[in-house]
Amino acid sequence: MNGNSIYEIKNLSLANDDLILNETIFHNANGYIGVRSNFEEGYKEGFDSIRGSYINGFYDFAEMKQAEKLCGLCEEKQTMLNVVDSQGIKVKLGDEPFSMFEGTVEESSRYLDMAAGVTGRRIVWCSPKGKRAEIVIKRMTSFVQLPLFTIEYTVKALNFDSDITFVSTHIGDVKNYFNPNDPRVAGESFEHLVPVSAGFKNGVSYIVTDTSKSGLTVCTAVKNILMKDGEFSECVGGHRTETTIASQIKENETVTLVKYTVFADSVRQADCKAKAESEMAKAMAVSLEKHYEAQKAYLDNFWNQTSLEIEGDDDLCLASKYNMYQLLQSVAKDEHCNITAKGLSGEGYEGHYFWDTEMYMQPFFTLTNPELSRNLVAYRYSILDGARENAKILGHKKGALYPWRTIMGKECSGYFPSGSAQYHINGDIAYSTIAYYLATKDLDFIAQKGAEIVFETARLWMDTGNYYHGQFHINDVTGPDEYTCIVNNNYFTNASAQYNLHWAVRFYQLLKEAGKTQAIEKIGLTEEEVAAFEKAEKNMYLPYDEELGINPQDDSFLQKEVWDFENTPKDHYPLLLHYHPLYIYRYQVCKQADTVLAHFVYEDAQDIETIRKSFAYYEKVTTHDSSLSTCIYSIVASKLGLEDKAYAYFGDSAKLDLFNLHHNTKDGIHTANMGGNYMAIVYGFGGLRLKESGLYFAPSLPKQWTGYKFKIMYEGSQIQVEVGSDSSVFTLVNGDAKTIHVYDEAYELENTLTIPRKKVGA
Amino acid sequence: MNGNSIYEIKNLSLANDDLILNETIFHNANGYIGVRSNFEEGYKEGFDSIRGSYINGFYDFAEMKQAEKLCGLCEEKQTMLNVVDSQGIKVKLGDEPFSMFEGTVEESSRYLDMAAGVTGRRIVWCSPKGKRAEIVIKRMTSFVQLPLFTIEYTVKALNFDSDITFVSTHIGDVKNYFNPNDPRVAGESFEHLVPVSAGFKNGVSYIVTDTSKSGLTVCTAVKNILMKDGEFSECVGGHRTETTIASQIKENETVTLVKYTVFADSVRQADCKAKAESEMAKAMAVSLEKHYEAQKAYLDNFWNQTSLEIEGDDDLCLASKYNMYQLLQSVAKDEHCNITAKGLSGEGYEGHYFWDTEMYMQPFFTLTNPELSRNLVAYRYSILDGARENAKILGHKKGALYPWRTIMGKECSGYFPSGSAQYHINGDIAYSTIAYYLATKDLDFIAQKGAEIVFETARLWMDTGNYYHGQFHINDVTGPDEYTCIVNNNYFTNASAQYNLHWAVRFYQLLKEAGKTQAIEKIGLTEEEVAAFEKAEKNMYLPYDEELGINPQDDSFLQKEVWDFENTPKDHYPLLLHYHPLYIYRYQVCKQADTVLAHFVYEDAQDIETIRKSFAYYEKVTTHDSSLSTCIYSIVASKLGLEDKAYAYFGDSAKLDLFNLHHNTKDGIHTANMGGNYMAIVYGFGGLRLKESGLYFAPSLPKQWTGYKFKIMYEGSQIQVEVGSDSSVFTLVNGDAKTIHVYDEAYELENTLTIPRKKVGA
Repeated sequence: MNGNSIYEIKNLSLANDDLILNETIFHNANGYIGVRSNFEEGYKEGFDSIRGSYINGFYDFAEMKQAEKLCGLCEEKQTMLNVVDSQGIKVKLGDEPFSMFEGTVEESSRYLDMAAGVTGRRIVWCSPKGKRAEIVIKRMTSFVQLPLFTIEYTVKALNFDSDITFVSTHIGDVKNYFNPNDPRVAGESFEHLVPVSAGFKNGVSYIVTDTSKSGLTVCTAVKNILMKDGEFSECVGGHRTETTIASQIKENETVTLVKYTVFADSVRQADCKAKAESEMAKAMAVSLEKHYEAQKAYLDNFWNQTSLEIEGDDDLCLASKYNMYQLLQSVAKDEHCNITAKGLSGEGYEGHYFWDTEMYMQPFFTLTNPELSRNLVAYRYSILDGARENAKILGHKKGALYPWRTIMGKECSGYFPSGSAQYHINGDIAYSTIAYYLATKDLDFIAQKGAEIVFETARLWMDTGNYYHGQFHINDVTGPDEYTCIVNNNYFTNASAQYNLHWAVRFYQLLKEAGKTQAIEKIGLTEEEVAAFEKAEKNMYLPYDEELGINPQDDSFLQKEVWDFENTPKDHYPLLLHYHPLYIYRYQVCKQADTVLAHFVYEDAQDIETIRKSFAYYEKVTTHDSSLSTCIYSIVASKLGLEDKAYAYFGDSAKLDLFNLHHNTKDGIHTANMGGNYMAIVYGFGGLRLKESGLYFAPSLPKQWTGYKFKIMYEGSQIQVEVGSDSSVFTLVNGDAKTIHVYDEAYELENTLTIPRKKVGA
Repeated sequence: MNGNSIYEIKNLSLANDDLILNETIFHNANGYIGVRSNFEEGYKEGFDSIRGSYINGFYDFAEMKQAEKLCGLCEEKQTMLNVVDSQGIKVKLGDEPFSMFEGTVEESSRYLDMAAGVTGRRIVWCSPKGKRAEIVIKRMTSFVQLPLFTIEYTVKALNFDSDITFVSTHIGDVKNYFNPNDPRVAGESFEHLVPVSAGFKNGVSYIVTDTSKSGLTVCTAVKNILMKDGEFSECVGGHRTETTIASQIKENETVTLVKYTVFADSVRQADCKAKAESEMAKAMAVSLEKHYEAQKAYLDNFWNQTSLEIEGDDDLCLASKYNMYQLLQSVAKDEHCNITAKGLSGEGYEGHYFWDTEMYMQPFFTLTNPELSRNLVAYRYSILDGARENAKILGHKKGALYPWRTIMGKECSGYFPSGSAQYHINGDIAYSTIAYYLATKDLDFIAQKGAEIVFETARLWMDTGNYYHGQFHINDVTGPDEYTCIVNNNYFTNASAQYNLHWAVRFYQLLKEAGKTQAIEKIGLTEEEVAAFEKAEKNMYLPYDEELGINPQDDSFLQKEVWDFENTPKDHYPLLLHYHPLYIYRYQVCKQADTVLAHFVYEDAQDIETIRKSFAYYEKVTTHDSSLSTCIYSIVASKLGLEDKAYAYFGDSAKLDLFNLHHNTKDGIHTANMGGNYMAIVYGFGGLRLKESGLYFAPSLPKQWTGYKFKIMYEGSQIQVEVGSDSSVFTLVNGDAKTIHVYDEAYELENTLTIPRKKVGA
């Protein structure tokens, strides 16, 4: 990794809000586990904290009563569990416990080192009685050994000799965070965890816990190693264990405790305890330094695959790297899970997977790390039966309808008009499956898993829409913009269905030609069905308003009054927190890019003039109350050559979490926005598009920058793109030569190509 | 009352389902209190029962959590309380307790006497040891002294002498019925009642109970009188009292216990206990016979005002009378309450008031008993501030929006798309207010209360709709048919808004002319606003389809596919219990009359040919899954001269409860359907209409009948209508001469007019 890879803050605020925010900002995760960055020693008495450790895809069921029962409504949700607290380490210097809230904090800082894959905290502290110590704490969740979380806790005595005592805890009876007043986190406290056992075996603390309803088990193991002699005593009480380590420290001496935690869960392995034992043994087999080295090597590769740099704006460059790093921390490393809306950094949205994955986060992996992208498709394949069942619940006779929000495949939407009614989730999953194919041409995977998804989602469109005056209409669905719900012919949805149907036909043809017909046979897909797909695709109704020359968001969008923005106080945004949904529905007002998103992902459905007019129209009525919005506006502004706008929208999105712009980063990072940030650079400024006809670029350069670069993988070849003020340089880093299109002209990329910059969108 | 006024069943079934059904069918109520007809002695061990006594408008709050919190959603509902159980009387003959489930029931019957206003049960019973007794029980809730409920319990020894003991209970710690699996009754058990005191004073048992959240109090008093010497002992335990009365009975002797209960509640009177004491004293002041006589006199007047008779179908005639009697039992007798969807017969829909009142039940009172109709408007006036508050919650800046379901004025809808979104409730309340005016010309009441309702609802339409292409559109509301929700320009809603706006203008003019401008001044209604009302009325958009020549139910109704009725199994009706709402929304299928209802109540908005085509169109796509549907189809069929259809639809609705056709009469009667049944005769067959231009009739006669008659009140005059096979006879029973229109020709009714029958709708 080049350039700055460290995000650091100094002179830590000890205000409660900042502490909770930093729990998120500096959390450690690897896609399997996530641990929020709480202080090992805890906060001041009475301070609020979301002290959580999570396993991706590990959940319990929770009752979700409907105020009014209606047929088929969801009354049980899944929720990602806080499974354990192994963060606790308390240190006593003589008889004085270390606390940031007592004595004097002389120096303090926290950092995230994205090249090394660790976070840290450094404090110079003077105790009430005058003992000065430097405390350095380093944490890692390993990308190489996924179940492993380590805390390296070092104390240096600066001016004293004394006893030193560490109390390291391992707590199984934890709870999820809840807040009855915030719709974005769980509103109730449930008892999710059932203690099974807690105890020591050969110096390792094991805690085994069952979930109360989902029938799952988690085992965590903790081992403490002191890097000098010490007296260990073990204590088990209730569903927790405590290890006390007594030793001595001398002036200028450094004493280090390393705390290893490994996680094992029954989603992945039936015998969790055995798995925890073997993972602990594996962790112990090499030194901590070796673990750090492996982490560094993994990240070297990651940053090399990405190689995104922005020249001329270090803050933005750092923020963009932070965002990519968080995507890596969040993305599933196996097929049992996906990417939650908040990564593994918090409990916002209860660890559910949404369309955010496919439309905002997966593109980053599709372009830089296709294997991780394939995992994400494989996860969707693993819940395809759930989606078939969900389609039945929604009344359908054929096809699959993916749940709007889920962990294990069942729908978790409490309010279906802005949940299950978002049928575009089907088109989104198809889109990302197709994008994976376009980036890799991995037809084997399509034959095994991808095509079945695309076929079954296509079938659902056929069972949802109907012909009216010769055109295929899709009624009573909700588009991405939740400020109107249950509408007819949402433009985005129809365009998405059209693309889905198109590719169902294409995959059918490609698989037939290749003789890889297992999916076709498995689901009994007939020629007649495929012909019907094609007919619906060709006759898909895409609303268009002659007068304005734009695509209306849905059939009735334009007949409504425009929201009275002028008389809406600033503190009434986001509107959803201040107005009854029915009132919002009645106006032309968009929470986020909807038709404009369609103009990006399904750009070939309209000519550039329509897109230009649509962009201008929707820009005026969009509040960007969703974090998924500005990045898309940035991309389409780039496409239209609106460079200032592209840059302004990009800036808003890049720093969302680092600057807590939405005031809720404490509940977790905004992973989708982070992916959108990447897209705004690569798809937006870089003008990249993946189409069946090939790979396209149309680079532009914000005038605030001197240049930028990134690498992508395309059909097994690695391509580097460097955009400068006069020209763009395309380099084949490795792999076979490829045809690329730059400003719509085709070139053969064999070594290096230098293409003069052109004005985009003119 | 002429003809048969007694509904009786013999050889009582003791099946649990039948018992619960009969609790409803034979319940006693008077609009203030309602007592279900449980057996005094209880059922067999383990039998289910809904043992309830209710006070109209007496409620507690209950939490109603939303599965997903959204701004402004309702999270607390009101629920009508089961307040006490004073039904209990157990009799012992010697050492043998009377029970229908032991010994031998030789004869048994139950009846409702609608002329006398009492229900009864008669049993000839032989005890296990051979004692034969006749037991006759008569119950009354007094229409004259509303707080009074009496049970007259008579035992005749047929073949024995023995001790006889009565144990009469008064129980304050009762609960509401709940069923977690039925959306139509409460799904949870709440602790609504807080005991305050229970005890005897001067031989009267008093129980005082508070509600847990609404801050209300209820007091009931019970007095037992034995019509011969007996030994009374009183016992108080917990929140209940028991009176044991020991006496002797000889062969052929009759022993009677009379149990008086009076109800008092803090909605109406702050000091309930004092009120209960004075009501008990009032009840004691005259003999039971006098109470019966007063009841009879009240009902003589009621039946005289109504005088509905059907000649040629005794069953239908009896069913129609049963329905009218239930309306009288259900209707509020003061301004603190209204008519619940189930009357006071059960807990279905939790004692809430819906649009059912205004559109289905109030017309009966408007035409036969305008004072009761005025009460209903006055109740709506009493919650006008609540409706203003509700409008604010829904985002509006002006006007009032009545809650879709309520007791005390706050919204209780759990699922707003088929609840609060039914803005037509405003138009419905305006409609019934206008109808009251049209029937009475009571401009004083309009000046005091009615106009303010009509003005504030008109204001809400202005804040809801918007001009589009010069026409006034109303978007994102739900019409009466809940099988599509949140639609644009629901025809019924728009027609209703148009009528509401029209009358807001008219009342403004009439009140200005009469110098009765208090409402105008109070709410600051301006000339400009009234001009805007008029403009919106004139430019109201009423969807019309040129091709079909019908009014589409809403903007997009016709572009949807017609529901696949052919392949829908019979047991999949009502659809709402078998299909996800979103699936239903996507098809042309109606739960109930919607546009067809508009064609009845706002008939002048369309020509007859459009109505004819609409009727034919909607008939094919309506399931009548709601009990509010067939009566409307009957009325419009009558209007169109479709006599067979009019009769068939009428027959379906008339007997709904007596024959338990919807399988849920146990939860209470279907009051709206009962009102609809009356309307199908008077508006349907009789062709009655109330318009500003006068009173209209267009009688038709089902060929199954030889004739029918009814009386109505019109502008203070009582008019009798007798329809025979050849002609109709109109008689001015009392009051001033009136102009009436028959088959659209005007006549002056001074004494009697005989008009030859004509074919209607040709």
